[in-house]
Amino acid sequence: MAQRNDKTLEDLFLHTLKDVYYAEKQILRALPRMSKAVKTDELREAFDRHRDETEAQIERLEQIFQGLGKKAQGVPCEGINGIIEEGKEVMDDFKGSEALDAGIIAAGQAIEHYEITRYGTLRTWAEQLGMKDAVKLLDQTLKEEKKADDLLTKLAEQSANRRAA
Amino acid sequence: MAQRNDKTLEDLFLHTLKDVYYAEKQILRALPRMSKAVKTDELREAFDRHRDETEAQIERLEQIFQGLGKKAQGVPCEGINGIIEEGKEVMDDFKGSEALDAGIIAAGQAIEHYEITRYGTLRTWAEQLGMKDAVKLLDQTLKEEKKADDLLTKLAEQSANRRAA
Repeated sequence: MAQRNDKTLEDLFLHTLKDVYYAEKQILRALPRMSKAVKTDELREAFDRHRDETEAQIERLEQIFQGLGKKAQGVPCEGINGIIEEGKEVMDDFKGSEALDAGIIAAGQAIEHYEITRYGTLRTWAEQLGMKDAVKLLDQTLKEEKKADDLLTKLAEQSANRRAA
Repeated sequence: MAQRNDKTLEDLFLHTLKDVYYAEKQILRALPRMSKAVKTDELREAFDRHRDETEAQIERLEQIFQGLGKKAQGVPCEGINGIIEEGKEVMDDFKGSEALDAGIIAAGQAIEHYEITRYGTLRTWAEQLGMKDAVKLLDQTLKEEKKADDLLTKLAEQSANRRAA
């Protein structure tokens, strides 16, 4: 039973753009909860700064929708929902424990890696589709996400040194 | 209302080990579906090879459980469930279309990135907890995951060149 399906890479790009748009909005809501829960100032500042970056990243996605002549809208993304949900569970289970910050950092890095993979994919497709402006915008966000992930790795290591001291 | 919580980083390590053990078992079931759906041989081989790697990675996790004197067991992981579910939806929506392989590669990379973040976290914690054998095993898997992700990036680019040709 051969199946006809005229969907194109551009359709897939648009679908994934909606997925990450939804994801960013969920992340925007999750970051203040994480910031409020952590015990160290540096980590709190990292989450607050990333919250501001996330707002700018959402605006970049809106520019890409606009460039495609499409309305900016999200589609529910079970991946990010699950990742955020897991983070909440760890925050509840380890509240008041010495390992709380470590757990929140791990949750933050899982969020970053979801974004890194989606933005990496979108950028590759934007290149293939010849969307020069989108490539630039996606690349800017991708770099921010990688930097945010690297910072969390550094803070995870520092947090361990503090515990050991 | 101060909350007492005696949980330690070792508890968090064990919880996350169970999370990734569950995740690997789900991935082991998802990979053959993905392999069956793709249109190009190289991509099929990549998924089949990663299926074999996943079996070895599960065995390494079992060795780590054993080293801790714990029974190997998983805890449901909503993150990987959501990521796999999203991949299935794309496979259904783009079945028979020119963009199917691109969508399956993206789903594979989202899986890889979930594993990369979890194994990276576990390795950092294993170092901090002085678990030398676990560090070695986790590092081995982490390298395989990064290599699998890099290969999918390469195949995504080749797939585009084929489409353009």
